[in-house]
Amino acid sequence: MRLVDELIKANEQYASAFSHGDLGPPPRRQLAVVGCMDSRMTVEEMLGLKTGDAHIIRNAGGVVTEDVIRSLLISHHLLGTRDFVIINHTECGMLTFQDAELRERLERQSGTAVISPEHFYAFTDPVANVRRQMQKLRAHPWIPREIAIAGLIFDVRTGRLSEVTP
Amino acid sequence: MRLVDELIKANEQYASAFSHGDLGPPPRRQLAVVGCMDSRMTVEEMLGLKTGDAHIIRNAGGVVTEDVIRSLLISHHLLGTRDFVIINHTECGMLTFQDAELRERLERQSGTAVISPEHFYAFTDPVANVRRQMQKLRAHPWIPREIAIAGLIFDVRTGRLSEVTP
Repeated sequence: MRLVDELIKANEQYASAFSHGDLGPPPRRQLAVVGCMDSRMTVEEMLGLKTGDAHIIRNAGGVVTEDVIRSLLISHHLLGTRDFVIINHTECGMLTFQDAELRERLERQSGTAVISPEHFYAFTDPVANVRRQMQKLRAHPWIPREIAIAGLIFDVRTGRLSEVTP
Repeated sequence: MRLVDELIKANEQYASAFSHGDLGPPPRRQLAVVGCMDSRMTVEEMLGLKTGDAHIIRNAGGVVTEDVIRSLLISHHLLGTRDFVIINHTECGMLTFQDAELRERLERQSGTAVISPEHFYAFTDPVANVRRQMQKLRAHPWIPREIAIAGLIFDVRTGRLSEVTP
């Protein structure tokens, strides 16, 4: 059995009890969350969010890349969100390598250089990293000043969030 | 009360019952999911995934951008995932606009053009879109052939998934 077949099978149970069929696209709490892809962050659950409440944007590191800006512009300008929250976490995989060494390894293994991705965005300090991501959002001319921007760190040992001052 | 304070408050309850403090970074089911940020997709729940099972990567549309490739390369080469699943959904916000008109509107509202983001990736057909995203993954020289790549559409009215053939 393929893994995707197991997922489709698990979904049958979810669909049989599904009660959110009346929701529209705009998130009810006008919130967009940007978080790491890490498997230990079950973002909705850890924030008390329900289906329909918020846009959830996730990538390696919870880094504000061009793609995250793209998603947030669509989130705010087309779907009405007004709060952006960035979440990094302790013991992140992004602390365990450096961009140049990963690129060199992948070029060696595959036998080829590539144009894209240009960066991996490894970092060393999650608190400083969250601060930089908040600054990137504030600096973008298409993100209005009225949008509230907050930053959080999730502790993977305790499940607890702490806020990062801008 | 700021919205982020409500989230931190909700998290206190989550943390008080937290039982995942022994998990490490590699996802237990060696799975990475790429899905839309849409608030109606509670990705882990709808796939029967538990905390620690999978990397969850999400952006506007569930589009394979440079940033998604970056996240998947880290996911596979550093954290051992072997299955990639792309999920789009019915009634997506990405079907409701065109790139050029959104860009023009944001330039007009803000009074300035910007360099980044370069594209918004609006699309018209979720099934065709999922197929194109699967092809982008297959075509990348740093994503090994052994990785299983599947595509799904989530129906926001019924909660049900259906598979997209490559």
